[in-house]
Amino acid sequence: MSQDLVSNRTTDANSASVGFADVKAAAERIRSFVHRTPVLTCAAISERVGCNVFFKCENFQKSGAFKFRGAVNSVAQLSESELASGVVTHSSGNHAGALALAARMFGAKAHIVMPSNSSEIKKAAVREYGGLITECEPTLDSRMSEAARIQGETGAVLIPPFDHPHVIAGQGTVALELLEQVPELDMIVAPIGGGGLMSGTCLAARALKPEIRIVGAEPAGADDAFQSKNAGKFIPQLAPDTIADGLRTSLGQLTWPFIRDEVDEILLADDAATVSAMKFFWERAKVIIEPSCAVPLAAIFHRFSEARCSDSPEARPQNVGIIISGGNVDLQALPWLNL
Amino acid sequence: MSQDLVSNRTTDANSASVGFADVKAAAERIRSFVHRTPVLTCAAISERVGCNVFFKCENFQKSGAFKFRGAVNSVAQLSESELASGVVTHSSGNHAGALALAARMFGAKAHIVMPSNSSEIKKAAVREYGGLITECEPTLDSRMSEAARIQGETGAVLIPPFDHPHVIAGQGTVALELLEQVPELDMIVAPIGGGGLMSGTCLAARALKPEIRIVGAEPAGADDAFQSKNAGKFIPQLAPDTIADGLRTSLGQLTWPFIRDEVDEILLADDAATVSAMKFFWERAKVIIEPSCAVPLAAIFHRFSEARCSDSPEARPQNVGIIISGGNVDLQALPWLNL
Repeated sequence: MSQDLVSNRTTDANSASVGFADVKAAAERIRSFVHRTPVLTCAAISERVGCNVFFKCENFQKSGAFKFRGAVNSVAQLSESELASGVVTHSSGNHAGALALAARMFGAKAHIVMPSNSSEIKKAAVREYGGLITECEPTLDSRMSEAARIQGETGAVLIPPFDHPHVIAGQGTVALELLEQVPELDMIVAPIGGGGLMSGTCLAARALKPEIRIVGAEPAGADDAFQSKNAGKFIPQLAPDTIADGLRTSLGQLTWPFIRDEVDEILLADDAATVSAMKFFWERAKVIIEPSCAVPLAAIFHRFSEARCSDSPEARPQNVGIIISGGNVDLQALPWLNL
Repeated sequence: MSQDLVSNRTTDANSASVGFADVKAAAERIRSFVHRTPVLTCAAISERVGCNVFFKCENFQKSGAFKFRGAVNSVAQLSESELASGVVTHSSGNHAGALALAARMFGAKAHIVMPSNSSEIKKAAVREYGGLITECEPTLDSRMSEAARIQGETGAVLIPPFDHPHVIAGQGTVALELLEQVPELDMIVAPIGGGGLMSGTCLAARALKPEIRIVGAEPAGADDAFQSKNAGKFIPQLAPDTIADGLRTSLGQLTWPFIRDEVDEILLADDAATVSAMKFFWERAKVIIEPSCAVPLAAIFHRFSEARCSDSPEARPQNVGIIISGGNVDLQALPWLNL
């Protein structure tokens, strides 16, 4: 379990365990399974930020989130006998549906341990993709012990949500594609939860364009990456409090060094700004994003609004790419209806 | 007023008053003002319909709807002195915002007569684009007399919402682009309200691909085009009853002959099916569409679901293009929350 490794680790992970060559190999491996998602722009947003903003729409990815890339890159590397034993993970979110779908494509069983308070919409997605749900108490201990029990009983292979080289390499294909589609980017922005997407983004973006500015975004109520980076040492997320349900996790052993060494800046957004940015995006871009991917948008709005931006005009970015990480939202319970 | 012309007309309009050459000229004229909107696909929808479905996303158009094309094609043809006098229309919907924005781009005033019960969201859009709103009673008589009064007092040029050659030619650029983007279409589907989009679609699609199947879609509660086509004569829409607020209007003098002579088939969808299709599209395609453009989707779901489709396999379409007409929705009042 990535969480366990993090809290017990004494030395930094060897981030060389995954490199840009793995991202390129992942892109080849998963090409026929994933969508090459479009990049969209929205004049109202570019105007508000004061530069060209490009959205890499992973909400249009299979299973509705970038998570499918890491999941299918992992499953595709299993042996025949591993596939016959199936896969297992614990997740309340997009990794659950993504892994269920990836496993189905390879004819493998997917055991998904989900906290009993997971949203009905996420459970329904897992079921639709043929995943086998085991409910557990909504604690990390319960999730991990249930997953371990299933591993023991079935021999299923654990596919963790972010802290695994195959998962990180798969997520890196998002930035790889984005920089092929929009080579003129001088800044790339991604949300940070466990750090899988951000680590993959660092791998691809640094390799393709060493001078690019790599920016992470976190909820103010789950700012472990921001705190860790400021302190220069890993600080776990103990009591996350944010609507951005995909970003509540601590960093992992493999992902923390990328955040520490490669991310240039981490921006924060509070939930009110996130909900407001999410609604603005729905209204103006006409595209459905979930709260977790409104966090980078809210942070960019705040960072670059004319009044606040202290950068000199030359230091301001010209072409910003934002990774839209997912679009799985319960349409019966929109956050602005509760405000 | 188009409505007036329709109810008083004794002979069919001369549909030769607008032709394919006008659509091509419109495309050149408006090129620098409009977005070339993307065409998206959604695997879940193609699977459900049983063929490849391509969505031409005019909800991503400026002002959030295809209406901007007709509006800007009209305003761009006004003389200096006409622009100085401004433009006027009456509309409770997307034409209002589209005309306000088009007029602003040409430095002209836009007087928009809106029924007092128009949605706040549509009024806000008109105001944001600098349009001057005059509220009136929610009757056609009141709308027309207010618009006529403003015309008399200001000399503003009336830009009707659909029954005008420049408007029809502008709307025809949607299908022109779509067939450039996806030349392999064998069916093209658009909603029918006043018939401006459908008429332009007929002009472009018949000229570019004479054998293409042209399909219109209407709400069951505002089926005047369906009734008119069946009867072979114009039948006005007297008491529309549908959630699809963009499709409540009668056909116009110029648009009816296109529906009569060029449309191959008109499909109907009731409101329950429309709301269900709209929610399905939001959930699966992650793109925001308004009820009026869920009507074609609901109709296509119904027409081509395996159990119902009586076409022989050879007669089934392979590549269907659906024009997504707009995405202006009040996010505080989603229709499925009231069911």
